[in-house]
This record gives sequence, structure tokens and C-alpha cells, in this order.
Amino acid sequence: MSLSYVPLLELERIRSLDVDPAERVHAFADACRINTLTMVEQAGSGHIGTSFSSMDIVSWLQLEELRDGDRYFSSKGHDAPGLYAILIGLGRIEFDKLFALRRLGGLPGHPDVLATPQVVTNTGSLGMGVSKARGFVLADRLAGREGRVFVLTGDGELQEGQFWESLQPTANRGLGEITVIVDHNKLQSDTWVAKVSDLGDLGRKVEAFGWAVRRCDGHDVQALAQTVRELNAAEPERPKLVVADTVKGCGVRAMEPHDVPQEETSLYGFHSGAPGPEAYAAGLAELVELLNGRLERLGAGPVALEERPAPVRRAPERPQRLIQAYGEALLTEAGREPRLVALDADLRLDTGLVAFRERHPERFFECGIAEMDMVSQAGAMALAGLLPVCHSFACFLTPRAAEQIFNNATEGTKVLYHGSLAGIVPGGPGHSHQMVRDIALMGSVPGMAAIEPYCEEEVRAVVAWAVHEAVGPVYIRLVSPPWELGFEPPAVELAAGRGTVLREGDAGTFVCTGPMLVSQAWAACEQLGDWGLIALPWLRGIDGAWLAEAASGAIVTIDNHVLSGGQGEAVLAALAAAAPQAASRVRSVGIDRVPACGTNDEVIEAHGLGADALVDCARRELSLLLENG
Amino acid sequence: MSLSYVPLLELERIRSLDVDPAERVHAFADACRINTLTMVEQAGSGHIGTSFSSMDIVSWLQLEELRDGDRYFSSKGHDAPGLYAILIGLGRIEFDKLFALRRLGGLPGHPDVLATPQVVTNTGSLGMGVSKARGFVLADRLAGREGRVFVLTGDGELQEGQFWESLQPTANRGLGEITVIVDHNKLQSDTWVAKVSDLGDLGRKVEAFGWAVRRCDGHDVQALAQTVRELNAAEPERPKLVVADTVKGCGVRAMEPHDVPQEETSLYGFHSGAPGPEAYAAGLAELVELLNGRLERLGAGPVALEERPAPVRRAPERPQRLIQAYGEALLTEAGREPRLVALDADLRLDTGLVAFRERHPERFFECGIAEMDMVSQAGAMALAGLLPVCHSFACFLTPRAAEQIFNNATEGTKVLYHGSLAGIVPGGPGHSHQMVRDIALMGSVPGMAAIEPYCEEEVRAVVAWAVHEAVGPVYIRLVSPPWELGFEPPAVELAAGRGTVLREGDAGTFVCTGPMLVSQAWAACEQLGDWGLIALPWLRGIDGAWLAEAASGAIVTIDNHVLSGGQGEAVLAALAAAAPQAASRVRSVGIDRVPACGTNDEVIEAHGLGADALVDCARRELSLLLENG
Repeated sequence: MSLSYVPLLELERIRSLDVDPAERVHAFADACRINTLTMVEQAGSGHIGTSFSSMDIVSWLQLEELRDGDRYFSSKGHDAPGLYAILIGLGRIEFDKLFALRRLGGLPGHPDVLATPQVVTNTGSLGMGVSKARGFVLADRLAGREGRVFVLTGDGELQEGQFWESLQPTANRGLGEITVIVDHNKLQSDTWVAKVSDLGDLGRKVEAFGWAVRRCDGHDVQALAQTVRELNAAEPERPKLVVADTVKGCGVRAMEPHDVPQEETSLYGFHSGAPGPEAYAAGLAELVELLNGRLERLGAGPVALEERPAPVRRAPERPQRLIQAYGEALLTEAGREPRLVALDADLRLDTGLVAFRERHPERFFECGIAEMDMVSQAGAMALAGLLPVCHSFACFLTPRAAEQIFNNATEGTKVLYHGSLAGIVPGGPGHSHQMVRDIALMGSVPGMAAIEPYCEEEVRAVVAWAVHEAVGPVYIRLVSPPWELGFEPPAVELAAGRGTVLREGDAGTFVCTGPMLVSQAWAACEQLGDWGLIALPWLRGIDGAWLAEAASGAIVTIDNHVLSGGQGEAVLAALAAAAPQAASRVRSVGIDRVPACGTNDEVIEAHGLGADALVDCARRELSLLLENG
Repeated sequence: MSLSYVPLLELERIRSLDVDPAERVHAFADACRINTLTMVEQAGSGHIGTSFSSMDIVSWLQLEELRDGDRYFSSKGHDAPGLYAILIGLGRIEFDKLFALRRLGGLPGHPDVLATPQVVTNTGSLGMGVSKARGFVLADRLAGREGRVFVLTGDGELQEGQFWESLQPTANRGLGEITVIVDHNKLQSDTWVAKVSDLGDLGRKVEAFGWAVRRCDGHDVQALAQTVRELNAAEPERPKLVVADTVKGCGVRAMEPHDVPQEETSLYGFHSGAPGPEAYAAGLAELVELLNGRLERLGAGPVALEERPAPVRRAPERPQRLIQAYGEALLTEAGREPRLVALDADLRLDTGLVAFRERHPERFFECGIAEMDMVSQAGAMALAGLLPVCHSFACFLTPRAAEQIFNNATEGTKVLYHGSLAGIVPGGPGHSHQMVRDIALMGSVPGMAAIEPYCEEEVRAVVAWAVHEAVGPVYIRLVSPPWELGFEPPAVELAAGRGTVLREGDAGTFVCTGPMLVSQAWAACEQLGDWGLIALPWLRGIDGAWLAEAASGAIVTIDNHVLSGGQGEAVLAALAAAAPQAASRVRSVGIDRVPACGTNDEVIEAHGLGADALVDCARRELSLLLENG
């Protein structure tokens, strides 16, 4: 199979067409849709739906509206593939990067100013757009520079409190330089915004904060341009917001939500993830037809595509699927514990809650992208006698609700927290989604147990323990992608503070958890021969005396987390307290910088967590240990 | 000098008066104002202004409105003294606790369900009220229980994004059981809400989120009761919000803001802190006259007060004033670095920014109680070429903006963060304000330097280093209360990763920072004789080789922070990496639970951080070390 793309010369031809500017923008946008589709299929993941819904808006901004000194950025950031396709089409990013989406040294899954200087600011964690716009304008004003700031937001994104927090101060300062355009495609990660957490009368709300608001068709460039022009003329002093009605996946009918019923249980399939060969081919054909129809109407010849071979990807053969195991385990324990209720922040599909919601709709609370609100709500539920379990990706749950989680913990109640997508894999979405600070954040909450299983059976044991045995709050940390361990995990016996000795070895012992690290350490042990491996699920409350006994030789802790506040430091502290001499045998390996974006293999290697790097580290440690003897 | 209070029998007489209920509530509220004034003067600190502005509202709720199954709590929580006075007056908290505000085992500075079971939920960190109310109502509905929830909020509090995040989902679920009353006293911590970050048309805003809104006089109980009654009749299905116009400090003319000009530079004096003997005596006389006038009009005899001696408090003689030194240092460096701008979250007075704002009004950005918004704004300013310094208490800045701080760090820019009120002192406000997780939170951000000075001169060196030499973001952690060290600090030479050897000793060495810990460790050394003391300002990036050399004998690290992710674990990790044998000499002392509320001496002792406890610990460690050889 091959992938097709619009080459640079063709993109240049299209944006040089001597026709009505709006028509030119539409043709350019459709060409960029083709390249976006190909980028994402090539990468194996990426946000197509929102790239397509915003494509006409962003193409118009970049081709027609932005002047020197102006800034544009997307607050949601998920639409990065679409933006990259446009910047490539404008010759502002080198063309070959089209094939390097989500690759190390390529184009990150979410915008990054260090990787892509054409990007204005880092986004991908939601709701920061207006705050950032205000910072730019105030800095420009202080420096006597002129410039406007255009910010694209999602609609689901507007469930985040920071968006509303930022509106009034921006109006109070009369920052007329700012125009927000809402890519109102009515769908968020899981399903319809109206079914997740309805926004109500968005225009009226934003107006009440002192902003000037208009609404228009976000796929009609002429209407959009006129709306913005009129708004600027009428309201030069006030910040402005345009609700642009768009269609998620716009351009490919099968990616548009025509067949997604307006129901809570619906799921939309093209938020993130690659389309796969069939949907790719059909989508490509449809987009080419659309573009050629446009070109024909504009009196121009059809587009000449180029091709390249599609990448071959290997699916894991016998992977551990922790999220699936979690979902099943939670359902099982919910049957035994009637007080258990589940709260979700628009990631039902990704946190394993689909079946729970179906089985126990009255015990499932969809909170939308509103982690603070979800967590404080859960705290009150716990005070009122329930056992709430809060769900989201670790990157959103643990920092955004850090204060609310602590507040709950001070009440002496039991709330469980599920943080998935933990660690550096998947490597594609980039650092906004690769959570490597959550152990430090959750582990510093007094009384919080923190635990990360490495295999499906341990997931089941952890969930059962958290629901029935833990006396206080628990953080359950999960690596999301299905992962091959390289061995069949033995039976799990969960014991407080202790782990499973997977291999014994006299020279030294790796201590880590999570399927990604355990698989790497296992492979390292295979090379080393005389090294042992302990899978230690406890991130806090580690039994140092047990570990000092169980771990022979040099002890190398490995963290899928920054070193500061990770499991390695907890191991060291536990050993120093219980068996001081063992503390001098410890070396900690982990993340020491902002996570790199790339394929899983690339980021594992980039951070020195691959089997070969662990072998090197083990040999180095052993010789040091012998030297210090 | 003596303090006067309304004894329980008199409170019972007043709330049993056979008169119009609204008049009775007003008389009871005034009696509770007297007791609140006395509580706060006795405690030496506490929030009088907001206790007085909300006193009529809360008295009415507790005496007339709440029924079995209903819940009431204050989202701001600062008004705890007022609530306690009311609950004491109702016989629901034992009377003697009137004299135990902010004492260990007494009534905490902010509401705490574990310390005071009559309290519904823990608050004091702002903006969580509506989220919690929703949790209570949803749990009650699930259990088939009926009950309403009344939530009091501040007005400055409504600058927090979580409040707005929580509104729409509450309206969407039709939670008519919830009534929010805004104690709209128009003043926040520093000054007028309108001058800090104006709320705009509050009623229109909340209505736009689908809530039913009314406005009334919050000091007219009859009007308030009627407003709530009418609102419930008209809008049974919708959540309701009443904007209650109140006067901060209401009841004592000198504590009301009549003389605070409507200007940005104004400062209101009775937000927190005890009034002091003169203002106390004048306030008491005024309140007694007010109450007796009411009683006379109601045909009742004057109130019979009782007295007790006022506590005697010793002011520190030669304290280190870090906040003042910080403010001066920032001003100095701002003169040398024109790119430096300061951002504040309504704590100008408490973070040392008053002079900066006066000298550089164009480089000062007041953001209101909106930490997320402030930090993202600062990130954009840094991208645009400025050197922004974000200010707030550590307890609000570091967890509430945890995600935004990380996002800034991923951009490779330099933003400085000032987190004061760090650690367990002052012990009076309670755990919502005693920040003991910030080193873990900030220290896990890749590239973030984290530093905490122990004396004024070190503050100056730290600020100069952060502004001129640091290449990336810096977290500056500060203990706020003026503190006596017990010795004259030597000259400071700030060297990367290293500290100051304050005392040498062969037996062992204390390693810590901050004036509170250094003073305790110094006093412990005086008792021990043969112990040394190193003041180590670096919370991360510690020079392990230097420390292993500089610290003789047993090494006891002391943390004004939880052990997980604190300085002690960073010391241990640095030693393990650079001088493994030294790691086996370390014992870490720190906080292992939610901080206790009490006087400074009480909380220091409760957490085992006092000089005597350190002496015991040192002797224990030394004998262990000798045993282990």
C-alpha cells in the first residue's frame, strides 16, 4: 500500500491561483486536508477530526488575515497536524517533515516552540489560550509593539475553568487586539459536547464577561472574514470571540459525525488515532474529488499527487492491556461494593469505563473536561458515604486537580484516582500528554497510597485492594498502550510495600514497575545473565527491609517518571530508613528533562530506558560498587 | 488588659427572645460578632472582616432556615471564626473552644471536618464550593435522601476558574437543591474587588450559565429570607445564586471600608490579623452598644458580658523578615533588569510587592485570585521577551497552577515563581495555607531550580541569582513570619548546590534551610555540643560530593515539607549518586501527615521539628550509625 500527498509545487500552484481569495483558501485547505490525512496515517496516530474542522479557519488566517507582528495559535493544540500541513504548504516548515509527524526530531503531536519555531506557544493541555494571548498583548504593549493575537479554541475545551477565569480580566483591560475563534464542531474526545457537559448559551455567556461575540459558519471563509472585519470595526476596544460552526472531520463524510446518534452512549471514532488503510483510501479519494471539483470550478487543472510507500507497523502479539483489565476489574468490584461510583472527565473510552457506564448508568458521572470540578465533587460524595473513583489521563488529573485532591485528602475520606497514559509511552502525543510528574504530585499528598501495576493480573489485584482494603485515598497509575512483556507474568500476590521477584541474580537487581519498564529490564536481564528483576508496584510506602533482602548486589531503580519524587527516590528513602547500608548500593535511572516526542522505541531510547542502555548502566554500577566495595 | 465575651446563657437568652425572627437573628448575630472579635483577638490572628460581613447571613441560615438533611458550608472558609461563634452560640460546639481558635486541638483557622465534626467540608482554598455542593446533592439523590445545600462564597473568590467551571454542569443537571449566597462585601485580601480584578456584571454572568439569580441586602435578614423563599418558589428546578450585598467588617465602623479610597493602591486593614488592643476595645464597645440598642428596642435587658485576661504575646526581637527583604531585593534587581515584570494574585501586601507596584506601576500586573491565568500569562510574556515573576502563597501558586507552570517550562523560557507562606508556620491558618508539598510539585518540573533562603542576606543573594544568573525557571520558596534565628547569620556566598556551614561538629550534621528549621537546628546544636549545622538553600541540584565532605558523622536532614519529594530525599539522592557511602549516614526528618493547626510553637512540636525533638533524633541516629559501623 502507498500513501499519497500533494507536493510543494502543487501547493504553491494552488495558493497562487488568481481567483477570489476565499475560493483560493478553500482549495488550499482541501489540499492540506489531503496532506494531513497522509501525515496522520503515516504517523499511526494524530487528531484528524479537529484538524479537518479547523482547516478552513486556519488556512484563512495564515493565507489572508495575519500580518507582521500578529500571532496565531491553537489553544487546544490537537489540531497540530492541520497546522503543520498548512505551514508546510506555505513553505514555512520544510516539506519532508510531512513524513515525520510524531517522530523524534520531527513534528510533535502537539505544538512545541522548541521543536518547531514557527509555532507561537506550547499547547495541548486545554484552556490556556486566552491567558497566553493576554500575556502576549501586555508584553507587546509594554514594548510599544503593535500586533493582534488570534486564538483558536475547541468547544469541549471550554469546559475547563481556566478559560472562564481568563475572560473577565482580559475584558477589564480592554484588550481589543485579541480575537478568539471557537472551532465549534460540537464533538469532544468521546462524543457530543452536549451529551458530555453541555456548554449552554455560549455566546451569551462570553458576552456576559464583557467580550464582543459573533457567530458564523466556520467552513465559509467569506463569512468568517466578514464577521471578523465587522467585529473589529464595531468593537475595536473589546476582546472578541467568534463562534465558528464547524463539522468535525469535515471533508471526509465517513469522518463527519452524521452517524453518531445524539446520545450519551455514542462514541465518535475520529478524534485521535490513524484511520487505517481502508478509511485512509476512501478518505483520500473523497478529498481528491472535492479538491479537483473546486479546481475545475476555478478553471484550474486537477491536482497531481505523489506517492510513497506506507509504513509497515507490527501489532504486539501477546500484550498486556492494562486499561481493559482495569475496566473489567472496576466492574467486578463495583458489583461487590455498592458505594462505588465512577467519575470521568471525557475519557470514558481511554480509561476503560465504557462497560461500567452501560452497566451502572446511575453510578457513572460524566464531568466533562473539568478535572477540578470532578475531584471536588468526588470529595463531597465521599463525605456523603460513597466511594468515588475519579478518572482521567494522569497528565490532566494530577496537576490540574492537585489542590482539590489535597483538599479531599485533608478530610480523611477515601477517594480513588485513576491516572492513565502515565509515563513516556505512547511517545507520539508529546509532553503535554506524557506524564512524568504524577508520582511526585500524588505521592506528596499525606495519606495517599500510590501504586502502579505492571501486568493485567496485578491490575486486578490493585483495584481489588484499592476498593476493599485501602483505608485512605489511592492513586492508581497506569501505562496505557498494550505492551508485550517478553515473558509470561507469574501469579501476583499483592503484599503491602513489597513486589514480585521476577528474576533472581547475584550481580545486581533492577527495581521498577509498569509493563514498559519491566519489559526493558527483562530484556536487559536476558543480556546480562546474572541480574535479577523485581516488579515493585508500590510507588510510596515501600518495605525497605524486605527490598534490601530481596535485591542482591547493585540496585538499579528505573523510573518512567522524572527522578525527582519518582519511585527511585522512594526506594532509596525506604532503604536508608530500614537498611542504611543498602542505600549505598542504589543507582536511580529515570527521566531528567521534558519528555521527547517520537515513536515508543524512539522515546525509550532517547531517555536511556531501553534494554541496551540498562545493560550499560548495570555494568557501570556493578563496577562502581565493586570499586567502593 | 482583658477580653470580654457573651456567655452561653446570654446567647441562649437572645436566641430565645419571643420577637420577630429577623430581629432575633440580628441580635444573635451581633452577640456572635462580639465573640468573634474576642476569639480573633485571643488567637492573635483570624479573618474578622469576612466573618462580620457574613454574620447576618450565616446566623439566619443556622437559626431559621436549615432543616434536617440540609447542609451549609462556606466555600471561602475564611469566615470560620464567625461560623464557630454561631455554632458555639447554638450549643453545638463546646463553649470553651471560644478561647481555642487556631490552637492545637482547638478550632482551626479554616474549617476542618476532622477537628470540628459540625463542619460540613474543608474549605479555605477558594472556588470549590459549587463542585462540592453538586457532589453532596448527587450522592443524596443516589441514596434517596432529600436535602438542600446552602453555600456561602466570597466575591474575590469568584475570580477562581473552578467556580465558573462548576456552574454549567450544575445547571445542566437541574440541581435545584443548591443555593449559593455570595457575601458580596466588595473587598478581597488586598483591596477593592473592582480594583484587583473586577467581576463585571456578576448576576448576568451567572444567569448566562443557567442559574436563577437574585440580589438583596445581606444585612437585612428579612429581605434575604424573602429573596430565598421567592427564588425557591419561582425556580424549584434550577440552582440558585443570591448576590447578597454586604459590608466587610460590618458592625464596627473602623473595620468597615469607609476610609479605603476606591483606588488600586488602597489597602484594607482587617482582612486577616488580630485587631490589637486599641481597635479591640473600641470595636467591642461599639458592638456592645449596637447589641444593647437592639435588645432595648426588643424590650430585653442589656447583655451581661464576662471577662478573661488577654493573652500576652512576645514579639520577636531581632527577626529575619524574608518577605520584606524579598520585596527590597526585587526592587533592586528590577532597577538592573528592565525586562523584569511582577505578577500578583491578590497578595501584594503578603508577597512584598507594595513598593514595587508604587515604583513600577507599568511593570506590575495584578491578576486577582486567578493563579492559572496569571501563570499562563507570564509564560507568554516570557516568550515575548520579558522576565516575569509570578507571586502568590506557595499553597495556591504551586498546586493550582501546576499544569501551567509545567507548560511554561516546556517552552525553554525563564519565568520566576515566588511561593511564600511555605511550610507549617504560621500554624494558625491551618492546612489549606500550610504548604508542605510545593518542593515536590515544583521540583518535579524539568529544568526548574528550587531554592529556599534562611536569612535576609541569603534572600538578596537568591533574588539576584535568579534574576541575573539562572538560565531557566526558578522557584523561590519563602517562610513568611518574621523569625528569630538565635544567632547572627554569617556572610552569604551563594554557590550552586552548596550551602553555608553554620556550625561544625564531629558527631553529626543537621542539613536544612529556612529560618524556622535553621533556628530549631541551631538550638539543638547548642544542646548537643558536638553537632554541626549546614544551611542548604538548594532544594534540587544539590552538590552531593561537597555535602558528603562538608557534613561530618550522621547526617540528619530536616524538612519543613512532607518527606516525599522534600529536600531530604534530594539530599539522599545527591549523596547516593556522588558519594554512595555517605547515603548510609542519612536520616530524614520531616512532615508525615496533614499539617496540624495551632500556634507556631504547637505545630513545630506536634510535627517533631522542635529543638528537643531534634536532639532526641540526633542521639538516636548517632547510636544507630555507631551500631551499623
